[in-house]
Amino acid sequence: MDQSAEIICVGTELLLGEVLNSNAQYLAQELARLGIAHYYQTVVGDNPTRLKRAIAIACQRSQLLIFTGGLGPTPDDLTTETLADFFQTPLVEHPEILADIARKFAHRRQKPSPSNSKQALLPATAAILPNAIGSAPGMIWQPRSGITILTFPGVPQELYPMWQEVAVPYLQKQGWVSAMIYSRVLRFWGLPESTLADQVAPLFSLSDPTVAPYASGGEARLRISTRTTSAALALEKIRPVEEEIRRRTGSSCFGIDDDTLESVVGQLLLAQEQTVAVAESCTGGGLGERLTRISGSSAYFLGSVIAYDNHVKQSLLQVDPEVLAAQGAVSSAVAEQMAMGVKAQLGSTWGLSITGLAGPSGATAEKPIGLVYVGIAGPHSVESFKYAIAPLRGRDWVRQLSASYALDLLRRQLLSAR
Amino acid sequence: MDQSAEIICVGTELLLGEVLNSNAQYLAQELARLGIAHYYQTVVGDNPTRLKRAIAIACQRSQLLIFTGGLGPTPDDLTTETLADFFQTPLVEHPEILADIARKFAHRRQKPSPSNSKQALLPATAAILPNAIGSAPGMIWQPRSGITILTFPGVPQELYPMWQEVAVPYLQKQGWVSAMIYSRVLRFWGLPESTLADQVAPLFSLSDPTVAPYASGGEARLRISTRTTSAALALEKIRPVEEEIRRRTGSSCFGIDDDTLESVVGQLLLAQEQTVAVAESCTGGGLGERLTRISGSSAYFLGSVIAYDNHVKQSLLQVDPEVLAAQGAVSSAVAEQMAMGVKAQLGSTWGLSITGLAGPSGATAEKPIGLVYVGIAGPHSVESFKYAIAPLRGRDWVRQLSASYALDLLRRQLLSAR
Repeated sequence: MDQSAEIICVGTELLLGEVLNSNAQYLAQELARLGIAHYYQTVVGDNPTRLKRAIAIACQRSQLLIFTGGLGPTPDDLTTETLADFFQTPLVEHPEILADIARKFAHRRQKPSPSNSKQALLPATAAILPNAIGSAPGMIWQPRSGITILTFPGVPQELYPMWQEVAVPYLQKQGWVSAMIYSRVLRFWGLPESTLADQVAPLFSLSDPTVAPYASGGEARLRISTRTTSAALALEKIRPVEEEIRRRTGSSCFGIDDDTLESVVGQLLLAQEQTVAVAESCTGGGLGERLTRISGSSAYFLGSVIAYDNHVKQSLLQVDPEVLAAQGAVSSAVAEQMAMGVKAQLGSTWGLSITGLAGPSGATAEKPIGLVYVGIAGPHSVESFKYAIAPLRGRDWVRQLSASYALDLLRRQLLSAR
Repeated sequence: MDQSAEIICVGTELLLGEVLNSNAQYLAQELARLGIAHYYQTVVGDNPTRLKRAIAIACQRSQLLIFTGGLGPTPDDLTTETLADFFQTPLVEHPEILADIARKFAHRRQKPSPSNSKQALLPATAAILPNAIGSAPGMIWQPRSGITILTFPGVPQELYPMWQEVAVPYLQKQGWVSAMIYSRVLRFWGLPESTLADQVAPLFSLSDPTVAPYASGGEARLRISTRTTSAALALEKIRPVEEEIRRRTGSSCFGIDDDTLESVVGQLLLAQEQTVAVAESCTGGGLGERLTRISGSSAYFLGSVIAYDNHVKQSLLQVDPEVLAAQGAVSSAVAEQMAMGVKAQLGSTWGLSITGLAGPSGATAEKPIGLVYVGIAGPHSVESFKYAIAPLRGRDWVRQLSASYALDLLRRQLLSAR
C-alpha cells in the first residue's frame, strides 16, 4: 500500500500570521530526503474541536502523522490531550519527565510552575520522544494499526535535534526509509545561471544522479542528487558528475555545500600565508564584515579603512586629490589608489577596494546607480574592474553584490597564483 | 452563521520543502488585520485527485477559499482547471487575458508560448482577478451559494498587489470586513523583555487597544492594537496608550514600526548637524555597514578604521602600545583610545568604537567569549561601557548585538545633548 506522511502544525499564532511556518519546510525537506511520500500539510489553531476534525481527516488519507506545536505548559497547548481524547486513550503521568523538567529548571536556577506538570502526561501506550533542550517532550505513538504519530514542540531549535536524533532512526527502524536522497551543491560566482546552464546542458538529461540548476543571491548553483542506500554509494555516483561539471565550468565553481566566497578566500589566504586589507566606500564596512564572519580570520585579515567621505580617501588612503577631482570618487583610478593605499598603510599582501554608487540617490548622466569599481593590489600589480549592477533590487543588493564581486576577484587571483 | 476563510496553497515544491510558505503567513496576517476568521490552512501538491479532495474538505468547513499557486502555463499548473472540474463548470477563453499576456511579453521583446494560452481559461461564471506584473491572472468566483473562491499565483511579488488592490476592496464590498485591526509597534533597546513587561504591566490588561510584548533579535517590542473602522479612529485610541508607555519607559523606546537604531541615530545626527566615525575590531565592519544601510548616510557618516590587527590599532588609531600590552586589546582603555583615535583621524564630532571577543576561540580566564567594550568619544568627553553577551547563540549574534549596543549608546548621548 502507498504509505504517506502528513505534517500537522498546531498553533493559533500560525493562523494569525505571527509566525512563519519554517517547521513545515524543514520537515518537508527531511521527508523528501528520506524518500517518505508526503501529500498534505494542515495548519490548525489551538482549538480541540477543530484539531480533532483535522486528525480525523489525516487518519483517512495519511499513515504517518507528524504534529508540531501545542506541547507547552499553558492551557491553550492541547495537542497531546486532544490526540489522547480522539483515540480514547487515558493520559498517564511519567515521573521521569517530571524529574527531567525539574532538572532543567534547576540548571537555570528556577523552579517549574504547577502548569509544567501537564507536560509529563502522555497517552498510556505512547513512548517519550525526548527533548534535550526544552521542557516539553514529544511522543511516538501507534494509537491503532496503520497509524503512527510523532509530536514535536513548535520551537525549531528543539524540534531539529529531536527529529534528527530520535525520529529519523525510529523511522528507519520501522521501515519507512528504504533509500535516501543525497545531494551535493556546487556553487558558482561570476557567470549568469543561463550561461552556466548552457555549459553543462547535456548533464541535465541524466537520470541518476540528477543535475538541477538554481540561483540565489546573485549566485548560481547546481544540485547533484541521487537516491540510494548509503552515503558512500551516493558519493560514488556523484563524484564523476561533479568532476565533469568542474571540467566544463573551470574556476567559476568556487565551492560546495556550505562553502562561501569568504570561507574559500580565507582558506586560500591561510594556505598561501598571505594577508588582506580592505578599503571600502559604498559598502560601508560590508566587505570586512563578510571576511570576519569566519572564525580565525584574524590570521589573514588585518583591517579596513572605510572612506565614506572623500577627505578620508585622501588622508588615510593617500588617494590623489587631483585624480579624485578629475575622475570622481567612483572611478577606476580611485579604486586602484584605494587598494594600493590600504595595502601600504596596513602592510598586507593584498589590498582590496570598492567604490561605487549604491543609490537610490547620487546618480549622474555618466555614472548610474549600480556602477561599482573594485580595485585589487597584489604583490606584483594593481588592477581594477568595472561592474554595472542592476539597481532595481535596491541599495542593499548593490552593496551585497559589490562585496561578492570583490571577494571573487581575490579568490581568482589567489587561485592563479597557486 | 460563522463565516471563515481557508488558505489552500497548491504546489509540489511546498511538499518537497523547496519553498518556504511565506504566502500563507502573509495571507494569515492580512485576514487577521481584516478581522476575517481563519481556522485552517492546507498545503497540497500539483495533483488533481488530491487537490479535489482538499477542495471538498474546505467547502465543508470554510466559506472563503483562498488558493495560491498552480496558475502557471505548464502542465503541472492545474488549480484553475481542477476547480472548474470540481464544480462542473466549463472553462471559457478570455481574449482580454490573451491580449494582456501578449502585451507583457512584447514589453520584454518576447513572444508568449502556446502554453500561455491556457492561462486565459477561466470557469464560465468566474471574474478575472487581474495580475499587473506576471502573466497569470487569478479569479474571483462564487461557484455556488455560500462559497467564494479567490485564486492567486504563487509568486509573492505578484500576489501582494493583487491581494491589496483587488481582493481586499472586493472582500470589503462583499461584507467580509466589518472592522480592521490597526497596530503600532514600539521598539526598545537596552532593557530585557521581562523588565519592559514589568514597567508597563498594568497596560497588559487593557482590552481596547490591547498591548502585547514580544522580542526579536535582542530587541524588545510592544504592539498596541485596536480593531476599528478607520485609521483615524485607531490613532485616537492608540495615541494615549503610546504616551503612557513612553512615560513609563523613557529613552529605552527608540522608535516605532519601521524605525531602526541606525535610522534613528541618523536622524539625530542630521538634526544636530554632527558627524560620526567608527573604529571596529571584532565586528569587522558591521557597525559601519549598519550606519550606511541608510540612504543619505554620507551626510553624517565619515568612515571607519577596522583595526582587526593590533598593529593597525597603533598605526591608524594611535592606541598606546603599552596600554595594549598591559590591558589587552579587549579592554576599557583600548576602547576609549580607539574612539578618540578615529575621531581625531577623521575629524568627526563623535568617535564610536567596538572591541570584543566574538568567539568561538580566543577566550581566556579573565576574558570570556561575548565580552565586549564600546567606546564613545564626543565633543566633551570619552567613555566606555562593558557588555557580557551570552555566547551560546554564536559569533554572528555577538557581533550583531555589539553593533546595536554601540548605536544605542550614541543614540542616548545624542538625545541627552538635545
